[in-house]
Amino acid sequence: MSVFMTADALLAHWQGHRRLTRRVIDAFPAEQLFTFSIGGMRPFGDLAREFLSMTMPMVNGLVSGEWKSFALAAHDSKDAVLAQWDKDTALLDAAWPKIAPAKFAEQMVAFGEYPGTGYSLLLYVIDNEIHHRGQGYVYLRALGIAPPAFYER
Amino acid sequence: MSVFMTADALLAHWQGHRRLTRRVIDAFPAEQLFTFSIGGMRPFGDLAREFLSMTMPMVNGLVSGEWKSFALAAHDSKDAVLAQWDKDTALLDAAWPKIAPAKFAEQMVAFGEYPGTGYSLLLYVIDNEIHHRGQGYVYLRALGIAPPAFYER
Repeated sequence: MSVFMTADALLAHWQGHRRLTRRVIDAFPAEQLFTFSIGGMRPFGDLAREFLSMTMPMVNGLVSGEWKSFALAAHDSKDAVLAQWDKDTALLDAAWPKIAPAKFAEQMVAFGEYPGTGYSLLLYVIDNEIHHRGQGYVYLRALGIAPPAFYER
Repeated sequence: MSVFMTADALLAHWQGHRRLTRRVIDAFPAEQLFTFSIGGMRPFGDLAREFLSMTMPMVNGLVSGEWKSFALAAHDSKDAVLAQWDKDTALLDAAWPKIAPAKFAEQMVAFGEYPGTGYSLLLYVIDNEIHHRGQGYVYLRALGIAPPAFYER
């Protein structure tokens, strides 16, 4: 078995992406975060709520082995989203080392409905954030706002 | 040291993303792949050329330790991009096991200008594809085309 990356490296990688996502949220004018959209897609504020709803609930499920049903976060203002984002940054750092190493390769059913290994479920949360953040870049450009650099974490 | 995921798992994860990206490329009408854009951003065909320019050159650099300068692929039609995509799918499967396991954690300078560990450089290539593919989803929706499901790989 050849190791691609360690758990510590994944946490650092994820927090880097989360710092970038925070800058993208912050780049939106507060009055457009939950209203601006293209092609009938969700506004970026709704996507940010989805990120909040996935990150700590997924990690807490991996720590405890107990899953609640998936529920969308209620935060409905830019300030509320950013405040929760910063809380989650500390919560994620604190919870991550509590995931038992064997959990990453273990098959499970997240939120009682999403089957996968621990690592694949975590990557889904991160990839989903990257995917929808790319959507946010187009919204910002369409609003005439230069988004933060993708390579800066 | 706690293992997050193995090299085999990363290859399977990446090829899953590449299958999705192929469906997104294929969802564009050929005449709009290299012309349609929003907010002054690059058309999706140019982004697909970038993915081709990063994937195998990065993996080949990790296998050989030799780096050429980064150069954008010349493919300028939907058919040419998809044909190269399929060739690369087989090339990636063949080259991946030739990366020495120690390379993933090793610090290097990709293409003579991008410093990072092997795993972080590979994740950059994958994350860049996910990021710009999210942009492609907005282009498709703006064109009135339903994009493929994000969760299907």
